[in-house]
Amino acid sequence: MFDKEVNMYEQIFTVNKSDRNKLNGHKGKVLWLTGLSGSGKSTIANFLEQILHKKGIKTYILDGDNVRCGLCRDLDFTEVGRIENIRRVTEVAKLMLDAGIVVITAFISPFTNERQIARKSFQDDEFIEIYISTPLEIAEKRDKKGLYKRARCGELRNFTGIDSPYEVPVKAEYTIDTSNQTSQKVAIELANNFKF
Amino acid sequence: MFDKEVNMYEQIFTVNKSDRNKLNGHKGKVLWLTGLSGSGKSTIANFLEQILHKKGIKTYILDGDNVRCGLCRDLDFTEVGRIENIRRVTEVAKLMLDAGIVVITAFISPFTNERQIARKSFQDDEFIEIYISTPLEIAEKRDKKGLYKRARCGELRNFTGIDSPYEVPVKAEYTIDTSNQTSQKVAIELANNFKF
Repeated sequence: MFDKEVNMYEQIFTVNKSDRNKLNGHKGKVLWLTGLSGSGKSTIANFLEQILHKKGIKTYILDGDNVRCGLCRDLDFTEVGRIENIRRVTEVAKLMLDAGIVVITAFISPFTNERQIARKSFQDDEFIEIYISTPLEIAEKRDKKGLYKRARCGELRNFTGIDSPYEVPVKAEYTIDTSNQTSQKVAIELANNFKF
Repeated sequence: MFDKEVNMYEQIFTVNKSDRNKLNGHKGKVLWLTGLSGSGKSTIANFLEQILHKKGIKTYILDGDNVRCGLCRDLDFTEVGRIENIRRVTEVAKLMLDAGIVVITAFISPFTNERQIARKSFQDDEFIEIYISTPLEIAEKRDKKGLYKRARCGELRNFTGIDSPYEVPVKAEYTIDTSNQTSQKVAIELANNFKF
């Protein structure tokens, strides 16, 4: 085995996060959306990015589509796979934040522990947890792709809310239920609250 | 097992790479530095980033320090670990390029196959392979951290150039030997050649 500890020494690069933030005209941030499948995370993320982009803010959305099919394509949806998925997402968000970007993550991220690890990876003002609290009944009614239906039949396993738990956040900066308000309205209100 | 294929459907986000490039005022790119330990990759990457940053270009360096201690901290330096390390670096570079950034990677990346996979992950004009061809004798003489010495003693294993192979690139866009020129001069010349 290669001796990792001895071989990893810090390479100090001249251009740093503060320089990049200056060039961008704003600080980076991680807007961490969590909630059930169908709760509205991706739709809100999409509106949020549009609003911030129009303001000239450098944004990027990390979600199941661009992460699960690439960086994490070796992982499954078991508890172990989900934990490693969120660990990698956290690490990529760290790199992107260091690069000066406002990162919006849209993952179910069902476990308190992994969300806590994510939070602790950033400074207090860099990490904003947004719990999309839309109840299961509503999320399941939407079921655009018929996933809940298949999970109820036992055709899909480890499906959050059905046979895999969702641990409700207790310290989220925002808790938003999309049962009775549009994702667009939610995104506008959120965007008005952020300082970059 | 959760049915991955069925559950991964494409989420189309409104703001895309082209919008981000427009906002940044330049396209993203991947500048892929490869070469032996001590060849000068990180030093060139650092000068390169300074020059590009001064031009107002959004940059980020991925290197052993910020990747091996975070995203890839579960990997070792065996062939399998190195391959997975470069796979993940490629995937992060893809995400960052999509976010509009000029990504500079500084990894030994010793295997042709992984560099080829990296290249194929991008459009032709997005990926630039820069082979830092400084010979082993020179790199070993520099040996700032005494790593070559330890590898020669057998104290470090899987060390590229000693007991782990470095497969020389044959299609690199640039081949640069830092034996007789400063890294700063190399970086200035490289930066003058790039179009964003």
